[in-house]
Amino acid sequence: MYDLAARLFPICRSITGDGFRQSLTMIREIIPEIQVFEVPSGTQVFDWTVPKEWNIRGGWIKDMKGNTIIDFRESNLHVLGYSVPVHTTVSREELLAHVYTQPEQPDWIPYVTSYYKERWGFCMTERQKQQLTDETYEVCIDSTLEAGSLTYGELILPGETEDEIFFSTYLCHPSMANNELSGPCVQTALIQYLQSLPQRRYTYRFVFIPETIGSITYLSRNLETMQQHVKAGFVLSCVGDDRTYSYVSTKYEDTLADRVLANILKFHYPDHIRYSFMQRASDERQYGSAGVDLPVCAFCRSKYHEYPEYHTSADNMDLISPEGLQGAYDVMVKVINALEHNRYYRMTCKCEPQLGKRGLYPTVSQKGTKGDARYMQDFIAYADGRNDLIGISTMLDIPVDRLIPIKNQLLEHQLLTIA
Amino acid sequence: MYDLAARLFPICRSITGDGFRQSLTMIREIIPEIQVFEVPSGTQVFDWTVPKEWNIRGGWIKDMKGNTIIDFRESNLHVLGYSVPVHTTVSREELLAHVYTQPEQPDWIPYVTSYYKERWGFCMTERQKQQLTDETYEVCIDSTLEAGSLTYGELILPGETEDEIFFSTYLCHPSMANNELSGPCVQTALIQYLQSLPQRRYTYRFVFIPETIGSITYLSRNLETMQQHVKAGFVLSCVGDDRTYSYVSTKYEDTLADRVLANILKFHYPDHIRYSFMQRASDERQYGSAGVDLPVCAFCRSKYHEYPEYHTSADNMDLISPEGLQGAYDVMVKVINALEHNRYYRMTCKCEPQLGKRGLYPTVSQKGTKGDARYMQDFIAYADGRNDLIGISTMLDIPVDRLIPIKNQLLEHQLLTIA
Amino acid sequence: MYDLAARLFPICRSITGDGFRQSLTMIREIIPEIQVFEVPSGTQVFDWTVPKEWNIRGGWIKDMKGNTIIDFRESNLHVLGYSVPVHTTVSREELLAHVYTQPEQPDWIPYVTSYYKERWGFCMTERQKQQLTDETYEVCIDSTLEAGSLTYGELILPGETEDEIFFSTYLCHPSMANNELSGPCVQTALIQYLQSLPQRRYTYRFVFIPETIGSITYLSRNLETMQQHVKAGFVLSCVGDDRTYSYVSTKYEDTLADRVLANILKFHYPDHIRYSFMQRASDERQYGSAGVDLPVCAFCRSKYHEYPEYHTSADNMDLISPEGLQGAYDVMVKVINALEHNRYYRMTCKCEPQLGKRGLYPTVSQKGTKGDARYMQDFIAYADGRNDLIGISTMLDIPVDRLIPIKNQLLEHQLLTIA
Repeated sequence: MYDLAARLFPICRSITGDGFRQSLTMIREIIPEIQVFEVPSGTQVFDWTVPKEWNIRGGWIKDMKGNTIIDFRESNLHVLGYSVPVHTTVSREELLAHVYTQPEQPDWIPYVTSYYKERWGFCMTERQKQQLTDETYEVCIDSTLEAGSLTYGELILPGETEDEIFFSTYLCHPSMANNELSGPCVQTALIQYLQSLPQRRYTYRFVFIPETIGSITYLSRNLETMQQHVKAGFVLSCVGDDRTYSYVSTKYEDTLADRVLANILKFHYPDHIRYSFMQRASDERQYGSAGVDLPVCAFCRSKYHEYPEYHTSADNMDLISPEGLQGAYDVMVKVINALEHNRYYRMTCKCEPQLGKRGLYPTVSQKGTKGDARYMQDFIAYADGRNDLIGISTMLDIPVDRLIPIKNQLLEHQLLTIA
Repeated sequence: MYDLAARLFPICRSITGDGFRQSLTMIREIIPEIQVFEVPSGTQVFDWTVPKEWNIRGGWIKDMKGNTIIDFRESNLHVLGYSVPVHTTVSREELLAHVYTQPEQPDWIPYVTSYYKERWGFCMTERQKQQLTDETYEVCIDSTLEAGSLTYGELILPGETEDEIFFSTYLCHPSMANNELSGPCVQTALIQYLQSLPQRRYTYRFVFIPETIGSITYLSRNLETMQQHVKAGFVLSCVGDDRTYSYVSTKYEDTLADRVLANILKFHYPDHIRYSFMQRASDERQYGSAGVDLPVCAFCRSKYHEYPEYHTSADNMDLISPEGLQGAYDVMVKVINALEHNRYYRMTCKCEPQLGKRGLYPTVSQKGTKGDARYMQDFIAYADGRNDLIGISTMLDIPVDRLIPIKNQLLEHQLLTIA
Repeated sequence: MYDLAARLFPICRSITGDGFRQSLTMIREIIPEIQVFEVPSGTQVFDWTVPKEWNIRGGWIKDMKGNTIIDFRESNLHVLGYSVPVHTTVSREELLAHVYTQPEQPDWIPYVTSYYKERWGFCMTERQKQQLTDETYEVCIDSTLEAGSLTYGELILPGETEDEIFFSTYLCHPSMANNELSGPCVQTALIQYLQSLPQRRYTYRFVFIPETIGSITYLSRNLETMQQHVKAGFVLSCVGDDRTYSYVSTKYEDTLADRVLANILKFHYPDHIRYSFMQRASDERQYGSAGVDLPVCAFCRSKYHEYPEYHTSADNMDLISPEGLQGAYDVMVKVINALEHNRYYRMTCKCEPQLGKRGLYPTVSQKGTKGDARYMQDFIAYADGRNDLIGISTMLDIPVDRLIPIKNQLLEHQLLTIA
């Protein structure tokens, strides 16, 4: 995962354009089954319109002696996202009106965009701005903003049922690592994991989109199907650092997505942070919006907005790690595993079954000798058709992982049935 | 409000009689539309009977030398409420059997009544009682207790719908200020406020009644209509001091009255006190009684029973203040405002609308630049037809006052509809 | 109760056999109406099979000089429950493979059984085991394990309705006092109490069974009837010591049995311990199992598994006391009383009734004079047909005992009716 992120890192992506396409192609080298869709600029998508396509080749500020002050080639964050082209000489005052910095983080270049109002601009560190003391500068942004299309990738892995688990991540940010190459890289690995499974109960839907306009576009084409089939979904974002685990609940905190994430994180990383829907800021905004109301949580390690490097040049390859990505991947594999086994179970016999005669219970009764048989007895008691596996795990305070073999043993002995 | 209270203060009111009528007349000088009803003594009202009408002209105790010990003219609390007439000479011992004091508050005259058993009696300070050392006294109460009627006032301000908001206060106490001239004075001001509004969605029902027997009488005549139409109601009592805000919940704490009061007080005065229905003691007892079950809370500043001056001569014009009355009035205006705007809202578009193109959202995207647009986004997310405005305010922890302009902007842009 | 326990103590009981029969006969001397049932060995009862009948006459270990090391006559715990007969000479090593001790409680003989796998064995104190230093021993267990039957006792006390309250206790343990002679003794006293009542609303069902296999057997014959009629049930176990009170909730903690026990113990012994269903270990396991789902709690003083003497020779007649048994009995009498009076009540009049004219309320109104009339007013408010008596008691925080006379007064005055 880390290597894929490293290869993707230098590309200048945006919500449209060749940087996005090139990145998606790199992922399709691993997962060729991903389908690519192009949606023309100007297409109406709910209340929004697909914007013009933006491409950029370079950009710089020079002083009048020809010295380069900043250059897009050093960091693609230096050019305001979606800048219109410009090549002119401007006064210091005029330039400063087009300069964006993050003054409280004076050594980092901020990531700034203006997708829906045509502007040009440069982003730089506060210190760089302080050194703009000349009277006049030459500025150049070699970009195009023209009719084109918005690109996204989709993969549907069919399962035994039409019920779907949905994963969404976004590929529209330029050179930033945690936000957001970690999500696409973990998602790519999850697809490989699911492709490797001998069978899948659920159908899995994956999308690689530009943030916000991408999810709106995608929903405008798939909403009815998704409302009918999606049982749980996850936005993968900022899943590459080592600091914590967190998730953003759905609006009413009661969906299968909330339940399974809460359950897995409770055992995997008890100190994880749960954010309410009020703290949402990525595509879960659209998936949970009024009238869409899909059961989609966001899953993060250190959540967007909550870590200092967020949306700056400091969100680089040093911020993420193979271990950080692997940790997030492991949680999602546990989530998938819990969902695949998550049925309502019911015992086939009245009263407790006689486990002893099946070798599932000690035959000598003395205090302190029950051990793990207790877990089986507790599972049996709650397998009354009212609870799914995740619910039983939460009530019994036993990880789903430990209940699955118990459940399987009982199914083998025909003591259990799916309710 | 304070001036009206000052003018009403000297009058000796009771649950029936000319004091009540005279007070109601004084209020009708401000609100002539209030209708006056007279219910004859002996009328059966549910399990109760309208009592005889009581009027009093004077009362005193003198020693045998003719020195006045106490006199009704000094404080109308000196005569037991509903005392039958008496003029006789009594031994000290016999007198004491008719004397009421509040020994733990030795300088204050308690307010005592005997509405439903015929007695005569005097109330005085404990210190005054200690000085009754003569062997014999002359006592006189110049009252009448005869067939007459119970008086109450009612005003119905029609609105766009038949759904009603109900306000009830009582005017049956003699010279006490917080309990209870504050309630009638705030209610009078609220009527003026509502009359001044260009339109009202709700119909408003106001009553000025004697406590307990008055609400029972009123309910016996209006119960069916009220059960059909009243959506929220408030007993206004003890709303004139400066100490705190409080309210008494309904029985199951789940009505619109509970929800709006809890919401408004949470933002207006976070340290307010919520009393359970077990602490009820005014007309909310009847409105919330089994079989009546109207959604009516009591609203107070320092609640009856809870402040030391309650039901004594110390509950005088010094205990209440213009600011105290104004504060209670302000809360009730906020309550009315919240109720008037309290609809279930639903967005007209799927996904988030594009606020930027309507000038409702910043067009440059940089961390930390969203500001108040966040409130609009959160309102939009929860405007899914499941929540009313008060519910959204409580969930988002944003005062209704701040959501109303947001809601209005969205309605203007036709992004929002009433569900 | 203590005397009955003392008489029962020496008998060696097990889940089948003459010890159980003899004990039940002793109880039937007090309650001759108890019916005795014999279920043949080999009978299929749900997933289980009624085992062979076990009887024992003696058992000992001797050294080769003929000195008795341990003897069943000293403690019937010395022989492993359900031991097959044996009489042979064994090496020290071979003997130790058949010896059970509780090493962390070195002076106590543990209580150990092997009902469902044929074994022979001896239980002894850890110190006794340490002294087995000879090379060879003679061992003898004079038992029989043969086709026979499982014995249980049942008593049904009919009431005005077919709705049932169920009590279950077990009589299958050898010489241990708290666990379990206390349950049968308290249950015997409760039957006498219920027989003495002039009338009973509920029908009462009592069983004296062997643990686990007994409740499974009993349910296999009575499940449908019990699912139809049992409204609340209680397993009585470990109810004889003086240390605390406790109970084990049902699976979802929401049944009438949970509600009444929680209510009674809240007032009777506020420091009682509530265990979740996860801590179950007696017949409530079967009554609450998936597919059975009867509303049955376990009631204990110090709960099984939770006190050090549990399942050892230290659980003797010193551990229980007449006061301990009486305390548990008193709780259950309160439970029965609360259940007998537990109806949904509704006031017959709208608004509060005029209690004063019926002598139920003070006729002078002065602050601080209401006293107990307050309880009646609160009961009246909540007697709106939505709450049963236990619910009202819990909401008002007033014991059921104090509400019953209030309820009766209101019924007498025809102010109240059963909803």
